[in-house]
Amino acid sequence: MNVNKTVDSDAAPNPRNLIQQERSSAVFNPDLMNYFLEGSKERSEETKKMIQQMERDPILASRSNYYDLTKAEQRELTIKKINRLSRYIESETFDEFERRMSLISVFDPQLHTRIGVHLGLFIGCVRSNGTFAQVNYWALEKESAFIKNIYGCFGMTELAHGSNVAGLQTTATFDEENDSFIINTPHIGATKWWIGGAAHSATHCSVYARLIVKGKDYGVKTFIVPLRDSNHDLMPGITIGDIGAKMGRDGIDNGWIQFSNVKIPRFFMLQKYAKVDSDGNVTLPKMNQLSYGALLSGRVIMVKDAFRWSSRFITIATRYGVGRRQFQAANAKENDEESQLLDYPLHQRRLIPILALCYAFSNGANVLADSAKEANDILESAVSNDDKAGIDHGIALTKSLFVASGSLKSTCTWLTLENIDKCRQACGGHGYSSYSGFGKAYNDFAVQCTWEGDNNILGMSVGKQLVKNIENVLNKGEKLSGILEFLNDSSKYLNKEVVLNIDDLNSTEKILVALQVAIIRGSAQCLKTLQAQNDNWDYIGADLVTLSKLLAHFFLLKAFLDKVKTMGEGDEKPLIPILDKLAKLYSYTAALETFSGNFLTYSVISPDAMTYLTTTRIQELCAELRPHVIPLTDSFQLSDMMINSAIGGYEGNFYEEYFKIVNTNNPPENDKAPYNHLIMKMLHRGSYDDRTRQEFSDEVAELIDPELEDS
Amino acid sequence: MNVNKTVDSDAAPNPRNLIQQERSSAVFNPDLMNYFLEGSKERSEETKKMIQQMERDPILASRSNYYDLTKAEQRELTIKKINRLSRYIESETFDEFERRMSLISVFDPQLHTRIGVHLGLFIGCVRSNGTFAQVNYWALEKESAFIKNIYGCFGMTELAHGSNVAGLQTTATFDEENDSFIINTPHIGATKWWIGGAAHSATHCSVYARLIVKGKDYGVKTFIVPLRDSNHDLMPGITIGDIGAKMGRDGIDNGWIQFSNVKIPRFFMLQKYAKVDSDGNVTLPKMNQLSYGALLSGRVIMVKDAFRWSSRFITIATRYGVGRRQFQAANAKENDEESQLLDYPLHQRRLIPILALCYAFSNGANVLADSAKEANDILESAVSNDDKAGIDHGIALTKSLFVASGSLKSTCTWLTLENIDKCRQACGGHGYSSYSGFGKAYNDFAVQCTWEGDNNILGMSVGKQLVKNIENVLNKGEKLSGILEFLNDSSKYLNKEVVLNIDDLNSTEKILVALQVAIIRGSAQCLKTLQAQNDNWDYIGADLVTLSKLLAHFFLLKAFLDKVKTMGEGDEKPLIPILDKLAKLYSYTAALETFSGNFLTYSVISPDAMTYLTTTRIQELCAELRPHVIPLTDSFQLSDMMINSAIGGYEGNFYEEYFKIVNTNNPPENDKAPYNHLIMKMLHRGSYDDRTRQEFSDEVAELIDPELEDS
Repeated sequence: MNVNKTVDSDAAPNPRNLIQQERSSAVFNPDLMNYFLEGSKERSEETKKMIQQMERDPILASRSNYYDLTKAEQRELTIKKINRLSRYIESETFDEFERRMSLISVFDPQLHTRIGVHLGLFIGCVRSNGTFAQVNYWALEKESAFIKNIYGCFGMTELAHGSNVAGLQTTATFDEENDSFIINTPHIGATKWWIGGAAHSATHCSVYARLIVKGKDYGVKTFIVPLRDSNHDLMPGITIGDIGAKMGRDGIDNGWIQFSNVKIPRFFMLQKYAKVDSDGNVTLPKMNQLSYGALLSGRVIMVKDAFRWSSRFITIATRYGVGRRQFQAANAKENDEESQLLDYPLHQRRLIPILALCYAFSNGANVLADSAKEANDILESAVSNDDKAGIDHGIALTKSLFVASGSLKSTCTWLTLENIDKCRQACGGHGYSSYSGFGKAYNDFAVQCTWEGDNNILGMSVGKQLVKNIENVLNKGEKLSGILEFLNDSSKYLNKEVVLNIDDLNSTEKILVALQVAIIRGSAQCLKTLQAQNDNWDYIGADLVTLSKLLAHFFLLKAFLDKVKTMGEGDEKPLIPILDKLAKLYSYTAALETFSGNFLTYSVISPDAMTYLTTTRIQELCAELRPHVIPLTDSFQLSDMMINSAIGGYEGNFYEEYFKIVNTNNPPENDKAPYNHLIMKMLHRGSYDDRTRQEFSDEVAELIDPELEDS
Repeated sequence: MNVNKTVDSDAAPNPRNLIQQERSSAVFNPDLMNYFLEGSKERSEETKKMIQQMERDPILASRSNYYDLTKAEQRELTIKKINRLSRYIESETFDEFERRMSLISVFDPQLHTRIGVHLGLFIGCVRSNGTFAQVNYWALEKESAFIKNIYGCFGMTELAHGSNVAGLQTTATFDEENDSFIINTPHIGATKWWIGGAAHSATHCSVYARLIVKGKDYGVKTFIVPLRDSNHDLMPGITIGDIGAKMGRDGIDNGWIQFSNVKIPRFFMLQKYAKVDSDGNVTLPKMNQLSYGALLSGRVIMVKDAFRWSSRFITIATRYGVGRRQFQAANAKENDEESQLLDYPLHQRRLIPILALCYAFSNGANVLADSAKEANDILESAVSNDDKAGIDHGIALTKSLFVASGSLKSTCTWLTLENIDKCRQACGGHGYSSYSGFGKAYNDFAVQCTWEGDNNILGMSVGKQLVKNIENVLNKGEKLSGILEFLNDSSKYLNKEVVLNIDDLNSTEKILVALQVAIIRGSAQCLKTLQAQNDNWDYIGADLVTLSKLLAHFFLLKAFLDKVKTMGEGDEKPLIPILDKLAKLYSYTAALETFSGNFLTYSVISPDAMTYLTTTRIQELCAELRPHVIPLTDSFQLSDMMINSAIGGYEGNFYEEYFKIVNTNNPPENDKAPYNHLIMKMLHRGSYDDRTRQEFSDEVAELIDPELEDS
């Protein structure tokens, strides 16, 4: 009998030791690896400072009780956090605040979204569509950029129209006599729906509505409509309701809004492009302003999210898999201890590819973000210098990024949603506890596959670009640049020659070529089907989405390999062999194995190579990476606050930690349910005969059954 | 302007009409189709009667407010429902109550589980392991079978040992002097964990503990341990806590239990097999009693669940996809209306295969259930007649079913979890509303992949049976019967001959053969890898799971085709062509497309056939089934109460219905948040300079900056 912290009749399992052992035998420095993941030493250090600040913040930090809050409690806490964040905004740069938001997105996504609707969507809408004076008034003079006086919501989506902006049905009819617009919801289907912040917080809304002047419909424009006065009372003609419970992100007060002939001054229409003067003359911009840039930034954030979220959950599952013992290995001897979960080949195969994916995500997210910034800088400087060639170059860059980011947003969010659930399943029953973190995360993340461009719609549009571009290259001799440059070689690869044989699998460069070839042959096949189907693009929708996924993997693998190539000797040297293995495993699993049907159908890989890959090579590579999994997850440098999981903390002492968290949040001294009387009444309810007044008894039957009476 | 129910300035969308139109042009009778799904006319009618009874029951029926309940409210409501159900038990047959439970599992799974722990696990454990007197005492004399006096929980899982029963560490030490057992939890890792009913309801626990007599460990046996007295106060030595929040099924009061040297009489050990007499003599049964039967029944239920749950969610997504218009089709003319979602080929491809899968599930579930019952009857009658040959036959049948059910449980629960989320994503943003039903369902269902045998563990064990059996057939000339009979032909198929060319795709019989061949070639490949890996079965874990999935599809497709073959002329005739298409689509998508890598690697299908299948044939078949989707989902005959979705009701009037549900559960007259004062304080918090006492101002800088002072 051991007496230590508690009295134990037998030795308790010690997952901590197992994890610490692997940590102490790391062959590389997780700090240096973190520079690789964050993009540079400076970014790594900036990120850590910010996490430190937030995990010490009494309001902002997440704790285990986060998983026990009701919807009402989540909403209140989220406003407290927004209030707290509003103080940070007052004293930090835009870049700093952006980094802060990106981190908040991992440990409190509903906070990220709720504040993001005001700062990103509402103010962003005013900035994109408003005149200088309008931006100055609503964002700065009223100080709404610091979350003061005005809280905005973003009135785009309608009940019967989600992502189809052109089809929205709210109207803004010009009333010449009063120099006003009348905003109206014509029917239930045009009710603004899902509007974050509308139910409780918002004072104003940037409303997407059809501009109607003198009976003519000019299409959808944006208008600022006050919803609540400074006492937070609803303005007349405004009806607002609460959307209620959601699958996740219950901390956001999504609402619905109906406008019943609400009058706003003409100058509340955002008039940077389309303008209406007091006589009802409408000026429209010469070309439709494509706000690629604004859409791009949302996607950049979501690819970064994919990296951080996947990192968070693979860290939990990996630590659990190393610390947990269960069953004996098939080749164990009789008295061997039970095996660590992650020593089972299948468990390795379930988790280590996700770890490799995280490493691919990190670089892809960095490259995408840097390229978006670069394109934006080029465009801005060209515009301010009136440099036509520079503008064209900037636009071409942005368009290319738009394709890349579309494929990455959809592919990476889908994969991340899968990763969260795969990691949960790998933690067995304990993955089902709220305190392990998976449940709420799955629910919170799920919407990322739908918003900012439904993944299938995005995937189809990316695939369409691929097919159109390959047609231009093949039939019109066009030359492409940017992400799709490789399509220039299409004609060379249209035959059925095999690109990957067994010996080629060791070369990630060859696999990168194989991805290009798969995209080329797939696009060419689409073109063929399309012609057979009278150019009905909808018909090949599923194939277009597949092409988009392949393109995302091409981008991620290329970014990964490019980055490793830049790595020098010195300190970074020990990282390179590990990174090589990760890149390889990523390309084997996320690309070749997942799309094995495509690679085989298009003869990009030989059946023998595929057999070798799936039966042997992937498993071998997982085994080679197995000793490094703890240092590889430590390298994400997510603190316990960021991870917020009862079974995934750094220390690895997860049985005790989990037990403590369960007991702190559910004190065992409350040993009876609040509804205990109901249980007692049920269990001690008396006999059936008594309760039914003996009416169903033989005695009563004898009394009242005429047949018995007769007999 | 229309004045009807409301004042509309414009015509509202009318999804109802679209759905009703398709309903009215059905080419078959959904009632007859329901007989196919339920297995017979009688079962179909029985099922409907039961649903009618429950949807009218004021306590049992689910409503939209179900999605707004807190954990505390869910738990209380669940006990109210158990109380109500306890009255049904008093007056119906076992079969009736089983059917009732199976239906409850669809619309209130946490109720199903919470009551199931007592009736199925606790009483089941007493029945399987107890003597006649023990069963009679605890189940009947104390009336716990009617949920009276005693409420049982099932004490198997421990914190550090989930599914590995042999590794459990709770001890039951015989105390000869007092003719008692001492039940003890030796350390934190042996704490009983996840115990459904322990936190609030249970009075007794069937505890799995190591039997220790005179210092010798006899392995894990079962013991009845009272937890709470008739006042519901905890017995001494018993510590119980609440597990707290879970990913789903919060209506269940899962708890943890620690035993600190708790003394129970010797005759509280369940002694049907292992016995301990008062002198401490231990008698063990000659062979380990494999309770295949008990495990089998859980799996049968879960395959049925897969059918009903998938049916429920595909019904919602289909109705929404038919009633919702969004965007214009690629081949639309300029003034065409927006297209119905389900008229887009990609949308068809996302949903119609799930519909086909439901039809495959239904039959598979029926065949599995009937076979299990048959095997059980054969075994019981053989045992009571002491018929050795009959016993052998019964055992062989049961073993074969054990393999089939293992592959079906794991494969069907995985697919159902995927189906729920695919259907959610197909409903866009509205799929994310709790009131659409997907969120809670995903969370509730997720655990089915983990409990009653983790899917990966089950899959591996099924795959292992396949590989072992193929070895026996190939190397030892063994002949198999039952589900694995087709392996007898293995040697014939081990070459690389292609089974499926383009022309063969029209024959589901050929596809059934192709599935057999894929399993045979895959198993043979496993055998090869296994030999190269020194018989380390763990190494081929991933491939074993794949084999198990293929076996499940073989079983489901075979059951489907067999059933259709039995269908006569008469009334059923119009169903046959539709069912043929469904079987085909099921085999194309769930088997051939999903496992395309395997089918191609093993040359079971030609690359040309695969290209034709994925680019053209599947899409064509979806289009052929498209007109029938509403009648096909109506055929599930799930009433609105069972579906409980704001966007999936029969009437199809989903915008109005959804709006009404949101408003009923979140009355818009509550126009301010309970925490409104926090919002006001934030927005009107005064200037930064005032709040920081002007300390950061230039004026103060001038006063206290020595440099400024010097200058």
